[in-house]
Amino acid sequence: MAGSTFGKIFQMTTWGESHGQGIGVVVDGCPAGLELNEEKIQKYLNRRKPGQTRYSTPRKEDDLVEIQSGIFEGKTTGTPISMVVYNKTQRSKDYSEIAGYYRPGHADYTFDEKYGFRDYRGGGRSSGRETIGRVAAGAVAIEILKEFGIEVYAYSRAIAGVEIDDTKASRENIMKSPLYMPDLEASDRAEEILEKKMLEKDSAGGIIECVISGMPAGVGEPVFEKLDANLAKAVMSIGAVKGVEIGAGFGVADSFGSQNNDAFVMNDGVMSKKTNNAGGILGGISDGSDIVLRAAIKPTPSIAQTQRTVNREGENIEIEIKGRHDPIIVPRAVVVVEAMAAATVLDMLMLSMTSRIDLMKKFFDK
Amino acid sequence: MAGSTFGKIFQMTTWGESHGQGIGVVVDGCPAGLELNEEKIQKYLNRRKPGQTRYSTPRKEDDLVEIQSGIFEGKTTGTPISMVVYNKTQRSKDYSEIAGYYRPGHADYTFDEKYGFRDYRGGGRSSGRETIGRVAAGAVAIEILKEFGIEVYAYSRAIAGVEIDDTKASRENIMKSPLYMPDLEASDRAEEILEKKMLEKDSAGGIIECVISGMPAGVGEPVFEKLDANLAKAVMSIGAVKGVEIGAGFGVADSFGSQNNDAFVMNDGVMSKKTNNAGGILGGISDGSDIVLRAAIKPTPSIAQTQRTVNREGENIEIEIKGRHDPIIVPRAVVVVEAMAAATVLDMLMLSMTSRIDLMKKFFDK
Amino acid sequence: MAGSTFGKIFQMTTWGESHGQGIGVVVDGCPAGLELNEEKIQKYLNRRKPGQTRYSTPRKEDDLVEIQSGIFEGKTTGTPISMVVYNKTQRSKDYSEIAGYYRPGHADYTFDEKYGFRDYRGGGRSSGRETIGRVAAGAVAIEILKEFGIEVYAYSRAIAGVEIDDTKASRENIMKSPLYMPDLEASDRAEEILEKKMLEKDSAGGIIECVISGMPAGVGEPVFEKLDANLAKAVMSIGAVKGVEIGAGFGVADSFGSQNNDAFVMNDGVMSKKTNNAGGILGGISDGSDIVLRAAIKPTPSIAQTQRTVNREGENIEIEIKGRHDPIIVPRAVVVVEAMAAATVLDMLMLSMTSRIDLMKKFFDK
Amino acid sequence: MAGSTFGKIFQMTTWGESHGQGIGVVVDGCPAGLELNEEKIQKYLNRRKPGQTRYSTPRKEDDLVEIQSGIFEGKTTGTPISMVVYNKTQRSKDYSEIAGYYRPGHADYTFDEKYGFRDYRGGGRSSGRETIGRVAAGAVAIEILKEFGIEVYAYSRAIAGVEIDDTKASRENIMKSPLYMPDLEASDRAEEILEKKMLEKDSAGGIIECVISGMPAGVGEPVFEKLDANLAKAVMSIGAVKGVEIGAGFGVADSFGSQNNDAFVMNDGVMSKKTNNAGGILGGISDGSDIVLRAAIKPTPSIAQTQRTVNREGENIEIEIKGRHDPIIVPRAVVVVEAMAAATVLDMLMLSMTSRIDLMKKFFDK
Repeated sequence: MAGSTFGKIFQMTTWGESHGQGIGVVVDGCPAGLELNEEKIQKYLNRRKPGQTRYSTPRKEDDLVEIQSGIFEGKTTGTPISMVVYNKTQRSKDYSEIAGYYRPGHADYTFDEKYGFRDYRGGGRSSGRETIGRVAAGAVAIEILKEFGIEVYAYSRAIAGVEIDDTKASRENIMKSPLYMPDLEASDRAEEILEKKMLEKDSAGGIIECVISGMPAGVGEPVFEKLDANLAKAVMSIGAVKGVEIGAGFGVADSFGSQNNDAFVMNDGVMSKKTNNAGGILGGISDGSDIVLRAAIKPTPSIAQTQRTVNREGENIEIEIKGRHDPIIVPRAVVVVEAMAAATVLDMLMLSMTSRIDLMKKFFDK
Repeated sequence: MAGSTFGKIFQMTTWGESHGQGIGVVVDGCPAGLELNEEKIQKYLNRRKPGQTRYSTPRKEDDLVEIQSGIFEGKTTGTPISMVVYNKTQRSKDYSEIAGYYRPGHADYTFDEKYGFRDYRGGGRSSGRETIGRVAAGAVAIEILKEFGIEVYAYSRAIAGVEIDDTKASRENIMKSPLYMPDLEASDRAEEILEKKMLEKDSAGGIIECVISGMPAGVGEPVFEKLDANLAKAVMSIGAVKGVEIGAGFGVADSFGSQNNDAFVMNDGVMSKKTNNAGGILGGISDGSDIVLRAAIKPTPSIAQTQRTVNREGENIEIEIKGRHDPIIVPRAVVVVEAMAAATVLDMLMLSMTSRIDLMKKFFDK
Repeated sequence: MAGSTFGKIFQMTTWGESHGQGIGVVVDGCPAGLELNEEKIQKYLNRRKPGQTRYSTPRKEDDLVEIQSGIFEGKTTGTPISMVVYNKTQRSKDYSEIAGYYRPGHADYTFDEKYGFRDYRGGGRSSGRETIGRVAAGAVAIEILKEFGIEVYAYSRAIAGVEIDDTKASRENIMKSPLYMPDLEASDRAEEILEKKMLEKDSAGGIIECVISGMPAGVGEPVFEKLDANLAKAVMSIGAVKGVEIGAGFGVADSFGSQNNDAFVMNDGVMSKKTNNAGGILGGISDGSDIVLRAAIKPTPSIAQTQRTVNREGENIEIEIKGRHDPIIVPRAVVVVEAMAAATVLDMLMLSMTSRIDLMKKFFDK
Repeated sequence: MAGSTFGKIFQMTTWGESHGQGIGVVVDGCPAGLELNEEKIQKYLNRRKPGQTRYSTPRKEDDLVEIQSGIFEGKTTGTPISMVVYNKTQRSKDYSEIAGYYRPGHADYTFDEKYGFRDYRGGGRSSGRETIGRVAAGAVAIEILKEFGIEVYAYSRAIAGVEIDDTKASRENIMKSPLYMPDLEASDRAEEILEKKMLEKDSAGGIIECVISGMPAGVGEPVFEKLDANLAKAVMSIGAVKGVEIGAGFGVADSFGSQNNDAFVMNDGVMSKKTNNAGGILGGISDGSDIVLRAAIKPTPSIAQTQRTVNREGENIEIEIKGRHDPIIVPRAVVVVEAMAAATVLDMLMLSMTSRIDLMKKFFDK
């Protein structure tokens, strides 16, 4: 069934394969009046583009976005915004070999089981290139959220077992680290491990953390469309993510009520919480604190070491995956997590506008 | 907006508050022909009922389910199944005090912010009693999945910092442990800690693990309606859940590709994987292995210790929450996780029936 | 699949069969703060209740509604409102005969084909009693719309071939006519024909017209969620409706552009249209004029005349349907059309709140 | 909010404006294994293309479709199919005048009210060109339905007040008539009237009829997702449609039960109905007969006669719309109705696959 549309009233619909004509997205439900152009979107796409550092595949892909609809005189019109990035460097010959077997950790086998066959070129629809559409749509969401004083930003919290030290981290550092780690010492150590893993033809995983600040309280729809539930879905839908947590996350499991409860406090007439183990969400509704979530990213499954697997004929074989692949997905996925979180938060912010008759009246009393 | 409906074609819509007339659920999209009666549903509800052990609140609530529609001559008719559990022991007087302040870790503040006021009796809609509807609907899903050879079961993996040892665990043990821990030694140790925490007027958290076995490969709809994405949403929508992971989960973050990749192997013509770090899902699609997921459950926020908070007038105050509350939510939440996982898997199983024209033709060639 | 939920963010989910425990509805997404009680709902239900006049079945059904959740201290809380009408006069024996054959004009055959069997008592889920849930939910919608100055009302435009004369019709007359016709002379003439048809053991059809006044311009979401498209679905989903039209409706087919175009005119700074052939909707968006729609209602299919049909064994047979049935459905369906129109308009009104960033800002600038 | 996606599991998402880069559609949920290429789609697009006859605007638009994704080795892969028709002849200067006023019968005013401003070039998103996406997506649906023995075809039933005589009509004639009327005599008479209206700078309306044959019984989901309800929405969402009816349609209003009921009859073991006033749908579910629906199409609102209207400054003015416009929309809209009906039927056919456990088992017993 259709599974390429995300969101209820701010929606993105993505399309495209790694080696088809291009990767695209239709953003529908974007409110009218946002100043938008290709440069604004490109800025985000550049952060997921390959070839930026030695830790990402050196394939040169320009990944230039074109806006095809939904903008008039520099502003969104409220109608669908179609965006496309044409594929430039499809070299189908590189991928012909993988047509015949199932790469461990990839979706080759499950696509074949589900659909009967698959576009095997570069992973087809299951390629990481699919996230281009997410990032372009998320960029629109982030730009809108800014208009409401809401900021969304993400970074690498841990890479290859090296975690940042919060006391040494700063938001400014994020862009200084090739790994998008806000603690530059941790970044250096992680780089060393990555160098070693590259020599061993191996790959590494990590954790991405995302913060949404400036959130008004009251966003999220109990009991199934809770803000955390939709964030979990949004982030878990990104390839390579195997876990999602909010606030203290899995840490709550060996915590106690007296530690984990966040005391409410009033400071100069402003409601806040002493701690933020809840990660800004109580009962599935934003509480006005920063929303904090984390995603666990698995190591790149494409490694050059010899691996055992099965071919389409059902025979046990050994393979060595050719070509250069990212030894780590985490840095390039940072902006993808940001995009999915932003799209979710915007959609739910909009949905929260109908919670109360008194506030709705304010809206309609023009 | 409406947030009380879950699922696309197998849907549950829940309603009810802790101290209203009752808690109910409408299950819509249930295929016709399933033998169903109240006993089958009650079996599941009994597992979440309070008063079963000394680790759950001693309030006596019968929680007897009534089926009101959708069954004829003992079988589902394909029309909506309405089920209700009437509230018996609403003592609104117990809760009048909490009307005026915001309990830490609860949704009191966020409901007030969102809706302008709240039904404060027993937590109203944000009460754990809301999960009765989920369990009743999930029970229907589990019964249908059995018809297709799919089993769903869950248990406490960790409680109050005590984790099970897989080598000592067995599925039979689950029901022998008052904490639903399949390793009885771990269960004993966890009980000891809970006893201590109860004396300290404190509460504890834990981890629930859920296994879905017998899954056919090919279920899950890239790129947003992936099986793992929907499971994450389903489980994160349960109150008190702060994290969800699939397979190796957060463990992938400090693992390497050579360790984390699951090698495919052919055994006597049957495809399988040597390991199951993927937790049965590759590219968002079931791969035929067991699906394994875990949920982190926070400690019960209602504790009798003195806590600081803010009242509706915006004053900093100190409170002590009266009444007996579960020192741990985990055991009673086990069947809730099971229910939400089952509803998700059934919905996605149904949706996967339209993936291929050749298989669809088989269906329509009557 | 699930088909018993209507609406996107103001949702109703109905359940129940003619001869089960009752008929119910869960209204979800109702904004908090509306004063609501059972009397308000009952007023609408009484208009569709049988036994009101000699043109409706004399079965006595009290059809008293109970609100089970979602209200606290007399106001909606923003959480699901469950409402139920328990069935009182189920006499299953009356219906045992129809179990074995397919009544012409009824859904007996299609239910059997779809689900393999059916609850044949009184039509089961396909009974007109199903509309109780719609009316109860629609009543909530109408009450909310009133808060925004929007009124929804319907009446019988034509019955048994007698159409009202607009120059003789007034809104006050509607409730004076046993057929809910606003032209009392037409009502008398229609009554005469109905009397005759009843003697002939026959039944009649008609047309219901619904007006929505006070609509702001700008409601409706091109290109598929247009206001008229959703109204058409809402109304066509009512049993017995075979056609829906907006404004001039089918009359446009032999009209010309110079006649059918509604000229815009400015009167004292207020935008309006000279005529309203558009029925208040242009390009799928409300234009600020009254919305006018009509539904064609078929004659009651249950008639006492001898009819030919087929039984479950596949044999051609002749039947005479026992029991008293409404000789005309139209009057009782008036409030159902009103309910469905109101639910649709409210849902779309809410959805229109995110069309523009500048207006959204007004909402969030608290 | 997002309104450019249609369908539940077979979905189309359209984008594009009359004078933007192009018009496109993403078809998601298309099952894998259908042989598909651009020629197959183009065949349908050619039927809505302008410049075919003297009754459509002579603007030359090639409207050539490109498939950008979702096809591999000539077959659908089960992933989104993106299709685009680039705009060739956008001459924005032609439309600069209409920026300042509201054309009667058009969506200029409602777009301005809803979004604050509009892309006025050629009607922007509200242009008839928007239907290109619908036709391309509908073509995919029609091709899939063929695989299941289901045919969808439409034609002009009435034009400018001239209706076809069923006894003189044949399916073969449809393509012989420049107006797609299956009764060629009626077609000639309608042409004469159109000629006259063109001289008078006026335009005409009509009725399109659509037949779906080969439908299995059992498709449609009570009580809101009925087959007729979704068809009504689908067709009413097409610009210029002001009414939809099924089977006898508005004719039921002055019919009687004894006339309108369709008797079931068994012929050589095959169930059928003596008449088809129901239009193939009973209780919202297909009954195995042909599905028959009709749509009322309003006269083209763009006419060259002097018209009164209001400009953006709120002044009453007189206008004459420049440029050549279709004197009649009906013939070009025939394939659009066909497309929307097909997309609806396919979606609902897929959804009907989960109605019964016994049939589902057949599917999963591979």
